[in-house]
Amino acid sequence: MALLVMKFGGTSVADLARIRNASLKVKREVERGHQVVVVVSAMSGETNKLVGLVNDAASGAEATAPGFYDAREYDAVVASGELVTSGLMAIVLQEMGIQARSWQGWQVPVNTTDAHGAARIESIPRANLDAKFAEGMEVAVIAGFQGVGPDGRVTTLGRGGSDTTAVAFAAALNAERCDIYTDVDGIYTTDPRITAKARKLEKIAFEEMLELASLGAKVLQTRSVELAMRNKVRLQVLSSFNDEPGTLVCDEEDIMESNVVTGIACSRDEAKLTLISVADRPGVAAAIFTPLAEAGIVVDMIVQNVAEEGRTDMTFSCPVGDVAKAEAALEAAKARGEFNYRSLDKDVDVAKVSIVGVGMRSHAGVAQKMFKNLADDGVNIKVITTSEIKVSVLVDRKYMELTVQSLHDAFELDRAP
Amino acid sequence: MALLVMKFGGTSVADLARIRNASLKVKREVERGHQVVVVVSAMSGETNKLVGLVNDAASGAEATAPGFYDAREYDAVVASGELVTSGLMAIVLQEMGIQARSWQGWQVPVNTTDAHGAARIESIPRANLDAKFAEGMEVAVIAGFQGVGPDGRVTTLGRGGSDTTAVAFAAALNAERCDIYTDVDGIYTTDPRITAKARKLEKIAFEEMLELASLGAKVLQTRSVELAMRNKVRLQVLSSFNDEPGTLVCDEEDIMESNVVTGIACSRDEAKLTLISVADRPGVAAAIFTPLAEAGIVVDMIVQNVAEEGRTDMTFSCPVGDVAKAEAALEAAKARGEFNYRSLDKDVDVAKVSIVGVGMRSHAGVAQKMFKNLADDGVNIKVITTSEIKVSVLVDRKYMELTVQSLHDAFELDRAP
Repeated sequence: MALLVMKFGGTSVADLARIRNASLKVKREVERGHQVVVVVSAMSGETNKLVGLVNDAASGAEATAPGFYDAREYDAVVASGELVTSGLMAIVLQEMGIQARSWQGWQVPVNTTDAHGAARIESIPRANLDAKFAEGMEVAVIAGFQGVGPDGRVTTLGRGGSDTTAVAFAAALNAERCDIYTDVDGIYTTDPRITAKARKLEKIAFEEMLELASLGAKVLQTRSVELAMRNKVRLQVLSSFNDEPGTLVCDEEDIMESNVVTGIACSRDEAKLTLISVADRPGVAAAIFTPLAEAGIVVDMIVQNVAEEGRTDMTFSCPVGDVAKAEAALEAAKARGEFNYRSLDKDVDVAKVSIVGVGMRSHAGVAQKMFKNLADDGVNIKVITTSEIKVSVLVDRKYMELTVQSLHDAFELDRAP
Repeated sequence: MALLVMKFGGTSVADLARIRNASLKVKREVERGHQVVVVVSAMSGETNKLVGLVNDAASGAEATAPGFYDAREYDAVVASGELVTSGLMAIVLQEMGIQARSWQGWQVPVNTTDAHGAARIESIPRANLDAKFAEGMEVAVIAGFQGVGPDGRVTTLGRGGSDTTAVAFAAALNAERCDIYTDVDGIYTTDPRITAKARKLEKIAFEEMLELASLGAKVLQTRSVELAMRNKVRLQVLSSFNDEPGTLVCDEEDIMESNVVTGIACSRDEAKLTLISVADRPGVAAAIFTPLAEAGIVVDMIVQNVAEEGRTDMTFSCPVGDVAKAEAALEAAKARGEFNYRSLDKDVDVAKVSIVGVGMRSHAGVAQKMFKNLADDGVNIKVITTSEIKVSVLVDRKYMELTVQSLHDAFELDRAP
């Protein structure tokens, strides 16, 4: 009997009507002969409410160390939301005549590191679940997002951790597939709000998904995709709210046919900063990016050009909202004598567009075709970075939609491979 | 170092301001040199919300067995409310500079029977708590109302179970005292809404508290008082919202001075039913009260009078809201030939008034004094029952307040012993 993992996120279990809807999908899989492990998130809004309580608790008038809190207590409070959903779904499934029971993280147990608030799953021993399946349990409803640390205290995996829980169970139990039910019905070639020609992909390779996720197509937690890739777990993303087939995220080898470019991602609110005429010596890049990291700024693209003898220009991109903070961090480091530069160029009106596809590895000329296309549209490219399966460019923000639409046409993403 | 158990109910931890207020009381005890075990309920309203979700889950349109639910899942859902409060209070205490940590039922562990929804505590091994106290923990914040069953699943103790949790910890840890913080500031000689002369008792015996609790003075769960009595745990009831001393519930021997009558309880919405001319044969009482019990009717007072040769009248009281159900159950049993009676007298306009006091054991004439007092007031007594430390009467409902006020004066309950 094949085992299936099904994961329902917060919006898919937001109220009892939705929990019933999700339970019907579970029931259907049971009737198809599957053993099912369901992983649930907290009802949407609950986790935020609990986090709010913790933050308020930690910042009271009586606080001797305001704002600090013990991450172990944060976890004890915040993990409670999933307990509610898993128990409720077990009841609803039982009402449908299915042998279901809820499992709290420590009951399985989901063993994690002790990094409270951002723990990593270390092992999921299958003995307890197997024993209950052998006794007739048809569905195990697992409280996602949580586990138990080496000291026996409740841990959480960080936001979005229920995806990771689902994939970890699929890996531990050698599941046939891990279905992630969410409020979108799959992965699209690009954002359908930008072009109506966007097409839902039947399959996408793990590597492509990772590039697309980190570029802003926030459907699956990056960590869960990495975990699935490492353990060869077949992931399917599909909608809780219809019965359409979703998108399978799988090994490159499982995809017979694909376009050269699989998808186009874009990110609207980017900024480009260039340090002009930096002394070009070993260690200068580290000197520049250390204060930025310490200021909590997520630097994305980095490009270094040699400008003149012994000097260089250093360009990077970051979210436009971080520009003031970045500038302050750089000026302060300059004042401390950590490095020097003549001036700082800021361009806060740029967007990033990326084409992604494992097919690029075997096809020459993909980047060239992209650049030619932009040139034909009169779009100036401000920065280029490339990886093995991705080419990203920064362009003026006003050209972002045009660029995505034009590339979507040029690479014929509206056509199935 | 003496160990103190402090319990805060739902209204005492209803929001963060109140959790802070409760935490200040805990802090004060720590500063006095106590090790403290705090037991908390869910924030008020939360348990009802969770119970509502479970009931709704169990009665959906898809339900094959509507209304049924798995009590193990009920427990898994409903016990989550206390996890939130215990974590939040631990954070607030830490902010106040106190070494506090939260404990979930299974972490201690609080071992219970597997009677989900109404489990009994079987043992609370003290090793885990002791180890943490030895490592410097000053306060253990325990999620009340819950434990873990023999199969490793979460159990709950039934409504109001946090009082029982508190007393069980006090017994297991040989606590100096168990302080129950609530929204009243102690036990009164009678309901202060009925007479302004009602006086807060400094001390009350366990047995008296049990009689008063079951008669309607709903301050402490009856079960927790029984448990305290059996284990000689000194219980104190006091207010979360002021710093007044409360009432100590303790062994009779610890009370040097007491009035003959300690308190007067009353219950407004009673009904008296009399079966006229029942065949007086062995087993007839069982025959009458079995269908009532099966119908879920809580019968309170029972009196049997011999009326004529071979026939008797059987009188009992029950909540006025149950009269129709009681009548139907009796008529049905009569129709089935289980017993016979000539007619059913109903009096739905009665109230119960009880005087309670361990002093009655050694004082003759207490009941006589009560009856004389009622007679002087022109109040007719409809039913009398007595126990060793209690006399209860049913009177017309309109005389209830008068009777309580008059007895309060007659037994001089407004004066300290």
